[in-house]
Amino acid sequence: MGFSIHQMAIDAKKASLQVAKLSSKTKNRVLCTIAENLIAHTPKILEANHLDLEAAKHDDLPEAMIDRLLLTSERIYDISQAVKHIASLPDPVGLITKNNRLDNGLQVSKRRIPLGVIAMIYESRPNVTIDAAALCFKAGNAVVLRGGKEAIHSNKALAESIRQALVQFDIDEAAVSLVPDPDREIMNDLLTLSDDIDLLIPRGGENLIKHVTQHSRIPVIQHYKGVCHLYVDKMADQKKALDILQNGKVQRPGICNALETLLVDQEIADEFLPTVSSLLDSHNVKIHACERALPHFAHADLATDLDYDAEYLSLEIAVKVVDNYQSAVNHIQRFSSGHTDVIVSQDISTANQFIQDINSAVVMVNASSRFSDGGELRLGAEIGISTSKLHAYGPMGLESLTTEQFVVIGDGQIRH
Amino acid sequence: MGFSIHQMAIDAKKASLQVAKLSSKTKNRVLCTIAENLIAHTPKILEANHLDLEAAKHDDLPEAMIDRLLLTSERIYDISQAVKHIASLPDPVGLITKNNRLDNGLQVSKRRIPLGVIAMIYESRPNVTIDAAALCFKAGNAVVLRGGKEAIHSNKALAESIRQALVQFDIDEAAVSLVPDPDREIMNDLLTLSDDIDLLIPRGGENLIKHVTQHSRIPVIQHYKGVCHLYVDKMADQKKALDILQNGKVQRPGICNALETLLVDQEIADEFLPTVSSLLDSHNVKIHACERALPHFAHADLATDLDYDAEYLSLEIAVKVVDNYQSAVNHIQRFSSGHTDVIVSQDISTANQFIQDINSAVVMVNASSRFSDGGELRLGAEIGISTSKLHAYGPMGLESLTTEQFVVIGDGQIRH
Repeated sequence: MGFSIHQMAIDAKKASLQVAKLSSKTKNRVLCTIAENLIAHTPKILEANHLDLEAAKHDDLPEAMIDRLLLTSERIYDISQAVKHIASLPDPVGLITKNNRLDNGLQVSKRRIPLGVIAMIYESRPNVTIDAAALCFKAGNAVVLRGGKEAIHSNKALAESIRQALVQFDIDEAAVSLVPDPDREIMNDLLTLSDDIDLLIPRGGENLIKHVTQHSRIPVIQHYKGVCHLYVDKMADQKKALDILQNGKVQRPGICNALETLLVDQEIADEFLPTVSSLLDSHNVKIHACERALPHFAHADLATDLDYDAEYLSLEIAVKVVDNYQSAVNHIQRFSSGHTDVIVSQDISTANQFIQDINSAVVMVNASSRFSDGGELRLGAEIGISTSKLHAYGPMGLESLTTEQFVVIGDGQIRH
Repeated sequence: MGFSIHQMAIDAKKASLQVAKLSSKTKNRVLCTIAENLIAHTPKILEANHLDLEAAKHDDLPEAMIDRLLLTSERIYDISQAVKHIASLPDPVGLITKNNRLDNGLQVSKRRIPLGVIAMIYESRPNVTIDAAALCFKAGNAVVLRGGKEAIHSNKALAESIRQALVQFDIDEAAVSLVPDPDREIMNDLLTLSDDIDLLIPRGGENLIKHVTQHSRIPVIQHYKGVCHLYVDKMADQKKALDILQNGKVQRPGICNALETLLVDQEIADEFLPTVSSLLDSHNVKIHACERALPHFAHADLATDLDYDAEYLSLEIAVKVVDNYQSAVNHIQRFSSGHTDVIVSQDISTANQFIQDINSAVVMVNASSRFSDGGELRLGAEIGISTSKLHAYGPMGLESLTTEQFVVIGDGQIRH
């Protein structure tokens, strides 16, 4: 009688066949209706959000989490605008990516099709409910949303804006389903439903992602950590290096594309590190320096491997002097999380070598790691950043929510 | 002291950095050397194979398995030729697949890079040792090979041809490692090594693939079943349909792209099924027919859902009369394994609708399902066929053994 996550997945699978065949025009009209509903329902959404905030305060949740939970009229407006933006993006479904005519007359093409059913498992940010639903729907998929228990009232109110739009366009409501009960057992059951769910995307802290990865029978796209490196080569333009360091560490340290480690070639360390010291001091950045870098800083402690492995997500940085280019590459190959790594160098051979040597999702030359983002790289919008190499690597846009099928057209050909 | 699968994976990871940077020329020279070594080592390989065959006979293994185990001079020659063919294919590594210049002057491209370390888990066919190693190596990956215990002597002898070629070109031997002990516990340990292995490809029976999928912490590319359908539409050219039926069912029934179910539109059933009956009878194909089809066959039993779900891999077929196009699509959506499904129709609208409606890895119009193969579709060579939609869907060539990284080149840009 009670809620069945298995039935929800079966219904989503059925709905996915309908969503896969919707025209771009219909999908975009549904998305614009969702955007309008969000604005119209703002008072109700804020009321629901208020319940979540009260509960969070009652449970003494940390300030940062309460801020992530908080919705305001402005934030709802922004969410609604993001949905309109997704409506304006090109539809990946049906795109022919390859097309050949073989000797035997067969016409072989590859064609983008939706993945089917995508499950999102996320934590306290309620905006993910709308963002993820809009992106999955635009790419022709059904989606099962499982948000955190802290945001359950907000999520339900937001999902209602989607449900009403689906009903208005005669689309199976199961195309976007919110798991109504944030019980952990139900989530664990969800992880086993590989017959009906094609992809699982967890968004949240490392523990959530580890749990999902270890227990899932469904393919998972992982985003673990962003331990991003900046290597300042001996041939670097030091002014550019300093700008890129400041932008990467100071602008938004809490984001995964922020810098966590600075590597400096020993040939320029004596000249460059004093300027690094005054820059980081002026922004109150805590410094963990290697033995050779330590003397250049007034306030710093000695870095350990734990520092090189850390995703600080705050005004903290590890600084290391390296013997040469190869030492920098070795350090990055050992400690990088595969997210984004940057070289600053005016030497074109060194820059090209860096691109060959570093197999992270994003490798950058003379540019800020902060550009490592679906929006900045012009993917249109971002459903997540993959740090595992399968299916998608790096910032994931709409295309990553599709796959490619072979289409073979003949005129009676058989194989000999 | 003993063998450590964990150490083997760590060594493979280290070797993968070297393999990723090898030039196409070097990789191709290594492959040609492997091909030559196979010919030169033929007597030793046959000797080792003889040990496996003796053991198999002693253990009363089925004839079919013994045939899969068997190597002959001709088979070794064919394997060697296949390696030379892989050497002749274009190298996917380093290929720039997209390239844009953004408003802010950043040049953003996507570039193919190897996946890293690939583990192959397979059963009795020793040729997989060479095929898989050659494909993974050509795509710049290290590979860990875990073959079946029945073929262990053959696999060791084959792997020696690879090892000698690697040594000759000063390449870390760990680039291609054969697990020397086919113990099941070691295989289960292998499935947990997600820090060092990027992708796992199981090749073999459904039980092996289920076991690997359920226990792996590493992303798995699955190939379950090939339950391929042929739908003969009311507007079909019945001569073409009959040719495609014969080719799909009779030519090589043991291959996964063989046909397992024939769906016939009721409007043409009375005309078409008698010709089907004589064709299938003349090839001694066992028939499982639905109630409406049954009267057309002299020897047939009544089909059940088990028949519609079966991958016979032999001279057996399920035959069903469907009310109309939509009934055929419903049947395929319910029973297809997502491998390959075929429509025969002269009506262009129906054919196009079928392409939209069927989300299998390969959808075909007026052509034999037997073309659903990496070689026939001109992928050059095939490492497997994926029936799950993530990363690769359908026949997988060299490209499926790579991923794409973002390369961002700037001139000091920072984010505002």
